[in-house]
Amino acid sequence: MEDGADLDENAMTMDNDFGDIEFVDEEAKVDGGALNGVDDDDEDDENVVSIEKLKHKVMAYTNGSAHDDEETKDSIGDVRSATPSIAGYEMPKMFKQQEPFQPGSTPAHLEHRYLAWNTVGIVTLHTDGADGAIDVEFHDASVHHSLHIPNYNNHNMASLSSTVLAMAADNSSKIVCIALAASGNKEWSVQLPDCESVEALCASSRMLAVATSAQFLRIFTVMGTQREVVSIPGPVVCMAGYEDRILVCYHSAAPSAKQQHLQAMLFQTCGLRLKCQNVTLPLTPERQLSWLGFSDCGSPVFSDSMGIVQLFNVKSNCWYPVCDTMKQSSSVSNNYFVISLSERSQILQAVLCRGTSYPMTNPRPMVQELPLQLPLCDLENEKSILEDSMLRASMMSMDNAEKTIKETAIKLFALACRSEMEMRAKELIETISCTDLLMLAVKYATKLGRIHLSDRLSELLPQIEEEQQSREQEEQLVEQSLPASPLILLKAYQNGSSSSSNKLAPKSMDLGSTKKSTLKRFAFSNSQSSSPLYKKSTNDSLLATPSSEASQENFSGNDSESQLSKVSSEDMKPLSRTPLNSVNPFAMKRKLSEVDKTILMGSEKLKMVKK
Amino acid sequence: MEDGADLDENAMTMDNDFGDIEFVDEEAKVDGGALNGVDDDDEDDENVVSIEKLKHKVMAYTNGSAHDDEETKDSIGDVRSATPSIAGYEMPKMFKQQEPFQPGSTPAHLEHRYLAWNTVGIVTLHTDGADGAIDVEFHDASVHHSLHIPNYNNHNMASLSSTVLAMAADNSSKIVCIALAASGNKEWSVQLPDCESVEALCASSRMLAVATSAQFLRIFTVMGTQREVVSIPGPVVCMAGYEDRILVCYHSAAPSAKQQHLQAMLFQTCGLRLKCQNVTLPLTPERQLSWLGFSDCGSPVFSDSMGIVQLFNVKSNCWYPVCDTMKQSSSVSNNYFVISLSERSQILQAVLCRGTSYPMTNPRPMVQELPLQLPLCDLENEKSILEDSMLRASMMSMDNAEKTIKETAIKLFALACRSEMEMRAKELIETISCTDLLMLAVKYATKLGRIHLSDRLSELLPQIEEEQQSREQEEQLVEQSLPASPLILLKAYQNGSSSSSNKLAPKSMDLGSTKKSTLKRFAFSNSQSSSPLYKKSTNDSLLATPSSEASQENFSGNDSESQLSKVSSEDMKPLSRTPLNSVNPFAMKRKLSEVDKTILMGSEKLKMVKK
Amino acid sequence: MEDGADLDENAMTMDNDFGDIEFVDEEAKVDGGALNGVDDDDEDDENVVSIEKLKHKVMAYTNGSAHDDEETKDSIGDVRSATPSIAGYEMPKMFKQQEPFQPGSTPAHLEHRYLAWNTVGIVTLHTDGADGAIDVEFHDASVHHSLHIPNYNNHNMASLSSTVLAMAADNSSKIVCIALAASGNKEWSVQLPDCESVEALCASSRMLAVATSAQFLRIFTVMGTQREVVSIPGPVVCMAGYEDRILVCYHSAAPSAKQQHLQAMLFQTCGLRLKCQNVTLPLTPERQLSWLGFSDCGSPVFSDSMGIVQLFNVKSNCWYPVCDTMKQSSSVSNNYFVISLSERSQILQAVLCRGTSYPMTNPRPMVQELPLQLPLCDLENEKSILEDSMLRASMMSMDNAEKTIKETAIKLFALACRSEMEMRAKELIETISCTDLLMLAVKYATKLGRIHLSDRLSELLPQIEEEQQSREQEEQLVEQSLPASPLILLKAYQNGSSSSSNKLAPKSMDLGSTKKSTLKRFAFSNSQSSSPLYKKSTNDSLLATPSSEASQENFSGNDSESQLSKVSSEDMKPLSRTPLNSVNPFAMKRKLSEVDKTILMGSEKLKMVKK
Repeated sequence: MEDGADLDENAMTMDNDFGDIEFVDEEAKVDGGALNGVDDDDEDDENVVSIEKLKHKVMAYTNGSAHDDEETKDSIGDVRSATPSIAGYEMPKMFKQQEPFQPGSTPAHLEHRYLAWNTVGIVTLHTDGADGAIDVEFHDASVHHSLHIPNYNNHNMASLSSTVLAMAADNSSKIVCIALAASGNKEWSVQLPDCESVEALCASSRMLAVATSAQFLRIFTVMGTQREVVSIPGPVVCMAGYEDRILVCYHSAAPSAKQQHLQAMLFQTCGLRLKCQNVTLPLTPERQLSWLGFSDCGSPVFSDSMGIVQLFNVKSNCWYPVCDTMKQSSSVSNNYFVISLSERSQILQAVLCRGTSYPMTNPRPMVQELPLQLPLCDLENEKSILEDSMLRASMMSMDNAEKTIKETAIKLFALACRSEMEMRAKELIETISCTDLLMLAVKYATKLGRIHLSDRLSELLPQIEEEQQSREQEEQLVEQSLPASPLILLKAYQNGSSSSSNKLAPKSMDLGSTKKSTLKRFAFSNSQSSSPLYKKSTNDSLLATPSSEASQENFSGNDSESQLSKVSSEDMKPLSRTPLNSVNPFAMKRKLSEVDKTILMGSEKLKMVKK
Repeated sequence: MEDGADLDENAMTMDNDFGDIEFVDEEAKVDGGALNGVDDDDEDDENVVSIEKLKHKVMAYTNGSAHDDEETKDSIGDVRSATPSIAGYEMPKMFKQQEPFQPGSTPAHLEHRYLAWNTVGIVTLHTDGADGAIDVEFHDASVHHSLHIPNYNNHNMASLSSTVLAMAADNSSKIVCIALAASGNKEWSVQLPDCESVEALCASSRMLAVATSAQFLRIFTVMGTQREVVSIPGPVVCMAGYEDRILVCYHSAAPSAKQQHLQAMLFQTCGLRLKCQNVTLPLTPERQLSWLGFSDCGSPVFSDSMGIVQLFNVKSNCWYPVCDTMKQSSSVSNNYFVISLSERSQILQAVLCRGTSYPMTNPRPMVQELPLQLPLCDLENEKSILEDSMLRASMMSMDNAEKTIKETAIKLFALACRSEMEMRAKELIETISCTDLLMLAVKYATKLGRIHLSDRLSELLPQIEEEQQSREQEEQLVEQSLPASPLILLKAYQNGSSSSSNKLAPKSMDLGSTKKSTLKRFAFSNSQSSSPLYKKSTNDSLLATPSSEASQENFSGNDSESQLSKVSSEDMKPLSRTPLNSVNPFAMKRKLSEVDKTILMGSEKLKMVKK
Repeated sequence: MEDGADLDENAMTMDNDFGDIEFVDEEAKVDGGALNGVDDDDEDDENVVSIEKLKHKVMAYTNGSAHDDEETKDSIGDVRSATPSIAGYEMPKMFKQQEPFQPGSTPAHLEHRYLAWNTVGIVTLHTDGADGAIDVEFHDASVHHSLHIPNYNNHNMASLSSTVLAMAADNSSKIVCIALAASGNKEWSVQLPDCESVEALCASSRMLAVATSAQFLRIFTVMGTQREVVSIPGPVVCMAGYEDRILVCYHSAAPSAKQQHLQAMLFQTCGLRLKCQNVTLPLTPERQLSWLGFSDCGSPVFSDSMGIVQLFNVKSNCWYPVCDTMKQSSSVSNNYFVISLSERSQILQAVLCRGTSYPMTNPRPMVQELPLQLPLCDLENEKSILEDSMLRASMMSMDNAEKTIKETAIKLFALACRSEMEMRAKELIETISCTDLLMLAVKYATKLGRIHLSDRLSELLPQIEEEQQSREQEEQLVEQSLPASPLILLKAYQNGSSSSSNKLAPKSMDLGSTKKSTLKRFAFSNSQSSSPLYKKSTNDSLLATPSSEASQENFSGNDSESQLSKVSSEDMKPLSRTPLNSVNPFAMKRKLSEVDKTILMGSEKLKMVKK
């Protein structure tokens, strides 16, 4: 089996599970003529993802002959419109504008389909004959017991959060909600005025949002109080919610020849106040939006029809590609159906759909966990793997981010020294601009006998101290203007997660033998050294930018010797229950430590672990 | 007469005035076959707007057969382009891109037309034969006496503010201005360089702005000093001005199949500095922009060709639909020509155009005042009516906003309790997160004997106190970075308006009999309770966000008993002269109190008051 | 010779240089029938640019017959797509969407072409036969010696900064970099993953950025550490870099009938953090983007295919047209190829291309320096010329900006008084709102015997004091939240430039004889008067807005008498070495003082100095 993304120890069990739905994969082998030479069994021995095959697939898509190998009815469909030619004149072609959809749902023509599959639970619609029904299962049974709802209203869209289930039908104006926490009558419903109908629905733990045919966004509280009606400037594509945030994606202009032009409105509520930030959604050419959601830390995330997952960092106002699910797939005819993304654990949860675009309802496929990885150049090199770790730690609200940044940075520094790239080594320390890191680097350079480099680094100290101080002052100023609600949210989050913070921590380098004397030069700098490298906030609110998470990072840096020994002891801690694995029935099977070592330590070509 | 929006006591007089221009309405009855059964006289007895008829009209528009019942030459014209079909291939249709226009003007083909009609005055163009002329009337004669200007330059566009009249002609490069406050020679003119011509004009009390064919925005002072030349990224649609703000609306992309894509640049000047904020203008599909302006508090406002009026809140960065003039119209062939919107009084001033899209110059039609109302669901319910009041008070700079929020919130709380929706009641208090309101709610719940609810509410106190404190700290921080100019502006505004603040205040609930003992539990919280609920600024400057209006809100909340008694005494205050009614010749006829009671207190279907 | 923009004393030498490539100009005279009557030699005597001719040219472009007079292969090409007409139906035409290009490069079909020409140096590509080569010359030889690189990799794009030369080829995935400061092996290279290829390249002194076919922006440090991968929402047009900033321009929607719709992402890095600001790029209709860069103070700048140069002010979030190179050209067939723009010196460096769109490689044409000028109305009037100076000083980080604002403002005040426009005079002082200026104005009005004006101005004092104070408080608050890196950048900049700050300072008005007694009224205001008028920052960081440049402006204003005398003495200072002229081989030839006087002092029609 070529399942490169299967990171689970119990892989044998899973292989059996997947065996049942592999028939489509078999067909793919026959139909995909160009791929005939590829034998899955051979790959068992290779233990490596065939980069060539993936390239071929991507190329095929790019060149416009992509869908030849998608022979199932569930495929997303030909997203490029034909180029008509009338009387010899080639008319301007236009990429097809996609219709509204519910993230986590499967196509409407299926008799048994998912209306929603997310971290809270799974909503399934069965339309056998006249008496259809909606089934709701919760990953965490303590949230609510399962529900079986007769579908008298012909609902065909639903959204599920930990507090509410919302249901509606295309072209209908009625929304029916079940408030999970309510006692007594849990159901409430609302009728849209005039001729408005529902285009998209989205429930968060705090709110319910409905996008209508009049391009209004209507926000309700979970219990049914009307909270807002605001205007959306274009046709809605889809929506997502997270606590007090709503993300609405819409077409901001007609599609051009090769791509759609999407914008998103990121709403945040605080009391009765609402704040909207406009965000451009960077769809790669020739692709459709296939999933929209929030990370476990509240960052917007989307996935496109070719499996690239991108994450939006509110502070930097940028989208970062953080996972290419296609690269983790063993076959060109497979797809990953995204369920959720965890910044803390650096994991994407997705369902592997063998030979299809969407998961079947029966048998229920397994959720897999794919590691996040930036699409850096030369990912087979140790340098790129370290850069990937460092950058992910600096851009996401990852567990132990600060420690990871320092540790990968010092490894990159060491690597540059070994490769006789002293300028690159020095530049790295200047870029990160952290006194702790500078001290480690000076120590390491001295140990290697690179006295010239060590001296030049020492000269950087005043400059780096100044930069770090300014940065901290700036952070403090921002922290003062902290709104109330995200703080409170934060508390709820900190319960189970901080203890799981050592999961992806790479092994510490043993710098213990470096002379302590090097550090003495910098004794006067210790007053600042206890300050965190980059304060990062879990919930960068739109109303302000809090940064209270930093306090939970106990990387003191006062004494790098003790700090480095501490790393090893932290690695011994048992894996604790996190918000992510607590809602995921498959989470306990996961053990990433081996993979981590392969990725972080290996200097040879990146291997996909085969079990 | 079906004049549902006529809120005036002197309605009989107005009916006579309108009678003269009803001939088009008569034609409408004949042509609009589907509407034949509707007899205006019958409606006299119904006293209710026919929702069905409005639905029909909206549906017709949506389905593309809208303009059948617009047979006058003044109609906006068919805004949808035809879908050509050549040799069986259907080509991509595109919504028509609208040409530049002056808000408050009537079409250019008319012999007698309005060049501008706004809160300052009315500019009329008469083109009888060779000797055309421009007439200017001021609502407030103390601003300036009327003007009669021979139109030697063939001007066909004008913009009027309290300080300047600007005139220009299509495709010409000369702008002629009359500085109203100047002594001696009031006229100055300017010639655009090269081949630039005027596309749109807009005068505020501080500035004059001209958008040219080179897509430059040229800003002048009222006396003719050149202040700025900045670039506009697309074809201009129209402009509006308010004090030191200019709003420029332009096409940001080609129209797509069903709608135009408009953006606006919101400029604010402060000394020689200029600041621009980009705002997306959310036109509803199949509609054109028909009016652009600012509210009396400086919020951008627009109206579309189907009569939806939307307001932009600078702080929240959102557009809110605040009035659907169509719903207030008694006949599908009528239109409202928007003149102005007052956030303080929650009123839209518009001219009812019976059977036409635009007002005639002779006889001069009356300005009507329509109440603002959000397009909430189930507006026939008491709950929705209260939500409408609460949301409008929280999103706009309405008089007595804080008091309205608290009073409608406590009514919603009471309503939820009565409807056995305790969770909804509690959620509401949590959402608004204000200690004063919490105390009132606890008192009320205790009075009703709902001890469980009362206890659960009490538990919220520490959380709500914390949130409120953070919010206040944040506001203070923002207040410190206050620019100079908006403060000064504010002073000018505060003269007449703060005393009129009780106009729309609903009657206070009598909670006086609730036990004082409930409050004693919260005695320790009184230290914070004097702080306002949500500080709101009249002039949310782009350069910073001042919030000085809060100080004029004297809702102390120290003792809710005394506060509630204070409400009644405030209700007794006489109606004073406000900026709005001082410039409006019809304003003194208005008395909204009865309507308010119908809307706020009534729990049955919303009636349009007929007099 | 009609070289109106030739500001150089050594014009005769240059004429000889240009003579070689004037053949195209000769052809232009023959082909451009409408221009036949224009005799270049005649213009020698006129000493004036023919505005008529320029108008004609602009008109021609606007009307769609523009390119008749562009017969060289180097012309940008017909940018308007044809309007096809099939079976009588006119199809929607669309402006042509331009392909990616490297700013400062010449077309790819040329055998000898520039790959990059900027303030650092010149990169030339020679493709004679099989053995092509890339030549790199540095303006400042101390940066690096010249390079001659055999072009084995068929590179056809390059970007050059003071620290790195980056090279790549169209449709290739390899980027080769030469780190100029590195010792030992200076070359590093990187391979893009999968099927990505390079679309655009850009090097700054801190970073290297690559836009790829997957619409990813990849940022590297100068030494080759991977720093970021972020998504771009549309097809890239071009990029520019400056220190820690990257500007990426892309198509945000399909072009509409008359124009392209471009957006830019302005990135700023600070440590490992990245911040992106979205900026709309306002291309004038019917034009293409032809150059993109940063000013010497880090403001984004672009030039279009008709020679309009626009500058983006980060603080105001606006684009300002600051130079119309066409107006400075003596012939309609000439073009200016933009090299750089200096805000400090208010100069655009460009290469005059006689009869071509692009400069030839041999003989190497000269760089000319064009003065910046806003496209104000009535530029032949003294008033407009003063307004131009005042506005440029207030919108750009110009040397001696504060002094220029005050001096031009007081001249405008004097002019308004002389023209009997007292209201305009007073309005100007109110607008600028600076106590120093107010005092000067009162003094001047008193001297002229305009006691009424003087009194009304005096009444403004409390208001202006208050505004100024608020402004200063606001600035201080912003200053506190200052990020580290721009401060450090700033220091590097301040070395040579502050001493050149008097270059464009206009001659001071002699107000010395005004009575000192006028000032005594305002003695109490002196406490504030030492504060700068408008604090301006050289590096308005996106992460915050620093304003440390103000401290180097020594316009004290404590005593206007001494200040005015100081101006003259400053005018005597020798021209010192600035960053601009130090990198420019032609800079020492420049003497702008005469031209300045013509522009700033002359009240007659603007003359182009002919030597």
